[in-house]
Amino acid sequence: MEIGRNSIINDNVVIKDNTIIGENCIVGELNAKSYHNQRYINPSTYIGANSIIRSGSIIYAGSIFGDYFVTGNMVSIRENSVFGKHCIVGTFTDIQGDVKFGDYCRLNSHVQIASKCMFGSFIFIYPMVVFTNDPLPPSNTLIGATVDNFSQIAAGSIILPGISIGKHCLIGANSLVNKDVPDYEFHAGNPSVRIGKVNHIWSKENKRPQYPWPYNYDRNLPWSGVGFEEWIKTEEGKIYSF
Amino acid sequence: MEIGRNSIINDNVVIKDNTIIGENCIVGELNAKSYHNQRYINPSTYIGANSIIRSGSIIYAGSIFGDYFVTGNMVSIRENSVFGKHCIVGTFTDIQGDVKFGDYCRLNSHVQIASKCMFGSFIFIYPMVVFTNDPLPPSNTLIGATVDNFSQIAAGSIILPGISIGKHCLIGANSLVNKDVPDYEFHAGNPSVRIGKVNHIWSKENKRPQYPWPYNYDRNLPWSGVGFEEWIKTEEGKIYSF
Amino acid sequence: MEIGRNSIINDNVVIKDNTIIGENCIVGELNAKSYHNQRYINPSTYIGANSIIRSGSIIYAGSIFGDYFVTGNMVSIRENSVFGKHCIVGTFTDIQGDVKFGDYCRLNSHVQIASKCMFGSFIFIYPMVVFTNDPLPPSNTLIGATVDNFSQIAAGSIILPGISIGKHCLIGANSLVNKDVPDYEFHAGNPSVRIGKVNHIWSKENKRPQYPWPYNYDRNLPWSGVGFEEWIKTEEGKIYSF
Repeated sequence: MEIGRNSIINDNVVIKDNTIIGENCIVGELNAKSYHNQRYINPSTYIGANSIIRSGSIIYAGSIFGDYFVTGNMVSIRENSVFGKHCIVGTFTDIQGDVKFGDYCRLNSHVQIASKCMFGSFIFIYPMVVFTNDPLPPSNTLIGATVDNFSQIAAGSIILPGISIGKHCLIGANSLVNKDVPDYEFHAGNPSVRIGKVNHIWSKENKRPQYPWPYNYDRNLPWSGVGFEEWIKTEEGKIYSF
Repeated sequence: MEIGRNSIINDNVVIKDNTIIGENCIVGELNAKSYHNQRYINPSTYIGANSIIRSGSIIYAGSIFGDYFVTGNMVSIRENSVFGKHCIVGTFTDIQGDVKFGDYCRLNSHVQIASKCMFGSFIFIYPMVVFTNDPLPPSNTLIGATVDNFSQIAAGSIILPGISIGKHCLIGANSLVNKDVPDYEFHAGNPSVRIGKVNHIWSKENKRPQYPWPYNYDRNLPWSGVGFEEWIKTEEGKIYSF
Repeated sequence: MEIGRNSIINDNVVIKDNTIIGENCIVGELNAKSYHNQRYINPSTYIGANSIIRSGSIIYAGSIFGDYFVTGNMVSIRENSVFGKHCIVGTFTDIQGDVKFGDYCRLNSHVQIASKCMFGSFIFIYPMVVFTNDPLPPSNTLIGATVDNFSQIAAGSIILPGISIGKHCLIGANSLVNKDVPDYEFHAGNPSVRIGKVNHIWSKENKRPQYPWPYNYDRNLPWSGVGFEEWIKTEEGKIYSF
């Protein structure tokens, strides 16, 4: 384990083997209950093995990160966030806490995830996407969105509260997603409309449909070298709903 | 008063009782006039009582914050910003200075406020909203927007320069607001259009109109326990235009 | 040269005369090849004279910045970024590396530039703009956008991968730019459409067309005091395509 200069590791933080914490980070940041409270006990924080927390990041106490967790610089992750293994959270991304991500999720920069949102695995979220949770702001009824395995949310889209996005979906850039998106569909626009099935999107380079994307892309993914077709038959592949 | 590790408090900063400054903060950051200037005198900065400046935030010298001011992590607030009491500025929000907010305003994460914008009280601004100020960029004529009491600006909206938003308005998510919004109206879309009166938006949960929202929501607001109807008749309530 | 408190300057960083580094900065941040690598040698970083790196900024090793480079607070700039002279990068802006900017470019706050994008000179980019690079995400074929001299990209716009924006163009706020923009054109909307020639946009204040903007605006620009018409005939002016 390596911890960079000026970084602060607070009480009850567990950091597993081979993990690197950059400079100027705070891990196990005290939550609001600590203010003016002498009896505050910091909730436990767990960062899996082989992780990289890049410089300037602030991670609140009370979250759990699986092995091979990676952040960009200056991310903010609040309490009660749960990430599976091999997840990436990009620079300036803000996770508001009380959220759950499966494995191999990748959030690009400037993403904002409201609390109570739930994500499967292999979900990639591109820059400046916002997941919201308050249908009639301000209200007391917060409803997170849910996203199923393998879906892709392109840059600048806003996902309204309580929206359900199925598996292997594609959301176009700068969309306002105000209706549910069934499995394998491509929605886009402000407000969003159904454009069609994702397998109608053609890759000129590969001369075949680009989606479902796992057949065409495997960088740092468990089917790399094996092929997605074969991998989904393995013990590991069967874990994830396809 | 508590000041976290690695935090820097510069000259002429006043911090009132019971305020907490997190770690890695800079309060009273020197402005551009300080560069290569031996005679620079830092303008005064005032942070009210019972405030919380969360870790990683940078607040320039020359701003005034009322009591119970709260920030998220890593906010940036430039000089000549004035905030009333009980305001909240969220993580990664950038206040470009020369702006004024009343009381009980709440800015979520990743908000950007251009200089010369003016805000009343009880205004909530959701993630990734941008207030702009240059109608013909780049130009020398900067015109801020104005927003009146109790209005709500949903996630991802862009407010064009000089726009006037009345009181108790609602702006839908991902809108481009290019025309003024009269009191009690709901506008949305890119570009924005008038959808209707805010009191036509119904709360299924409360079985009555959701807006004006203060009748339905009181968390950490002065009418909590009293009811908005009664509170607006009090000495405090009469201060704010309703 | 001045270096602020808590700032970290890593190996092989050259900082030229009269440059100011704020507090809590990291200059020459180690890249991914450094992890678990005892033999890592930090690539060289060059910051030109008379520059200002504001507090909290993180600049990776392996980038080059011309003279008079200025950043806001908490910017993130990755490796292999090349900036000409007199460029400005605003607060919370994220440059993902492998990009090139000419001279006098100004990026406002919360901008995100994907790798492989190429920019000419005198290009101003306003808040919350995203330049993307992956046409069929996720894919292995990243294609940056290109922008030619003097173009202006208004707040909240998303530029799709591989888009070519000509010189003296204007992109309206909150647009989704999915088609190329010829020289001197104004495009806006989601998706973007051609609105017309930029010289049809009138300045009431100046009683003449607002665009091409250099005839109307010269703050901190090389034609200040001379006039754009005269400047483009000078040796310096002839360098830039007009």
